[in-house]
Amino acid sequence: MKHARVLVNGQAADATINTENQVVLTDGTLLSEGEFSWLPPCDGKIFVLAINYADHAAELSFKAPDEPLVFLKNRNSLIGHQQNTYRPDNVDYMHYECELVVVIGKEAKNVSEAEAMDYVGYYTVGNDYAIRDYLENYYRPNLRVKSRDTCTPIGPYMVDAADVADPHNLVLRTYINGELKQEGNTKDLVFNIPQLIAYLSDIMTLSPGDMIFTGTPEGLADVKPGDVITTEVEGVGVLTNTIISESEYLAELPQ
Amino acid sequence: MKHARVLVNGQAADATINTENQVVLTDGTLLSEGEFSWLPPCDGKIFVLAINYADHAAELSFKAPDEPLVFLKNRNSLIGHQQNTYRPDNVDYMHYECELVVVIGKEAKNVSEAEAMDYVGYYTVGNDYAIRDYLENYYRPNLRVKSRDTCTPIGPYMVDAADVADPHNLVLRTYINGELKQEGNTKDLVFNIPQLIAYLSDIMTLSPGDMIFTGTPEGLADVKPGDVITTEVEGVGVLTNTIISESEYLAELPQ
Repeated sequence: MKHARVLVNGQAADATINTENQVVLTDGTLLSEGEFSWLPPCDGKIFVLAINYADHAAELSFKAPDEPLVFLKNRNSLIGHQQNTYRPDNVDYMHYECELVVVIGKEAKNVSEAEAMDYVGYYTVGNDYAIRDYLENYYRPNLRVKSRDTCTPIGPYMVDAADVADPHNLVLRTYINGELKQEGNTKDLVFNIPQLIAYLSDIMTLSPGDMIFTGTPEGLADVKPGDVITTEVEGVGVLTNTIISESEYLAELPQ
Repeated sequence: MKHARVLVNGQAADATINTENQVVLTDGTLLSEGEFSWLPPCDGKIFVLAINYADHAAELSFKAPDEPLVFLKNRNSLIGHQQNTYRPDNVDYMHYECELVVVIGKEAKNVSEAEAMDYVGYYTVGNDYAIRDYLENYYRPNLRVKSRDTCTPIGPYMVDAADVADPHNLVLRTYINGELKQEGNTKDLVFNIPQLIAYLSDIMTLSPGDMIFTGTPEGLADVKPGDVITTEVEGVGVLTNTIISESEYLAELPQ
């Protein structure tokens, strides 16, 4: 089963995706394209793994870490499928990061690696944009790199964990305007899903809806206003969004 | 006016504090001690300033920063007044940090320093515990330092911004078991409240209920299970909590 959140007539609503790829509200109403927009499919704490693919670590001239490197994001950064992400004016390099997102299904505290997969509720696709200009700071990553509004597309929907046969063997791909730019496989995760859940639930209580962005493989490229970015995780979803300029973004905000 | 959130008969409820320091529900019911417990008075994004008092920077052997150093916390770390904070087993040094907390009153995006104070809704007291054993990590601060459950007492209540004459001249004090250990004044903030709101609202949208923990002055000390910690911001509130061991904490969790 695929679970979405959509905006219909100004109201947020739960929906599922049927076998014909139609969006269906909980009362059975079928939605046509243009009748709704996509919202982030989950709500909770947002954990993001840095440098969790060895090839990406090499690309950034880092060695693979000895323990999970995790940072936090706030919900303001999340947007749904087919929404716009703004590129701040006057930055030199902003790149996508295609990621498998693990969504927690039930409260988890001090969970062992052996039982960790029982706490996965869903999977979805995340795109964790980064603005590399501001990468260095005593507290890394600087909020300007990773916490701006709209910089974390997620969705389009969540897929039940039971419907993903092997989350540790999924191809990830990113396209800019249809051209393949990034490709990897979750089999190359430095810390796998059970290790991440055990690590995080040792530190704090994980709750339903909490998201673990599991990291991105190599293949970074700069994105510019007008680019359509497609991030895909095999068997989980295809998430697209469009880059706009900061001035376009600010002009669209409610006054 | 002072605004609180309390737990009464298993239900969260809004309350105010009257001039006789009594807790009053919105329907006028007066609550006696023992009839309720204190919850965190606000809910939103949690920003925490590091090294925002020059004397504290010196104490940590850092120079004062050139720009605000801000990190994020998740809500799982928050607890209300008179609740317990656990000290993890096998850590060497865990210290309190008494802080003035600014609570945002209305949505703020790209706010100038000149208009920033209009966006402050309330003030409250925060205690941003830190476990120094894990301070070093590529992504600082490591979640183990700052994001454990119960490690951020806040409250007891929020005070209307209009009731705090000068938030940049408030004495902060921390006591362990009644003994004064930390003392400072918000006049020594490296980045003041308007600068912090302008900085953050340039990066992202701030929403009502968002909290800015403005940093702590010098005067760190280790805390041990059994210690009662009192953090006080003059004219804003007196927040107490008790340190318990990790095993006591785990024994109290719902099974």
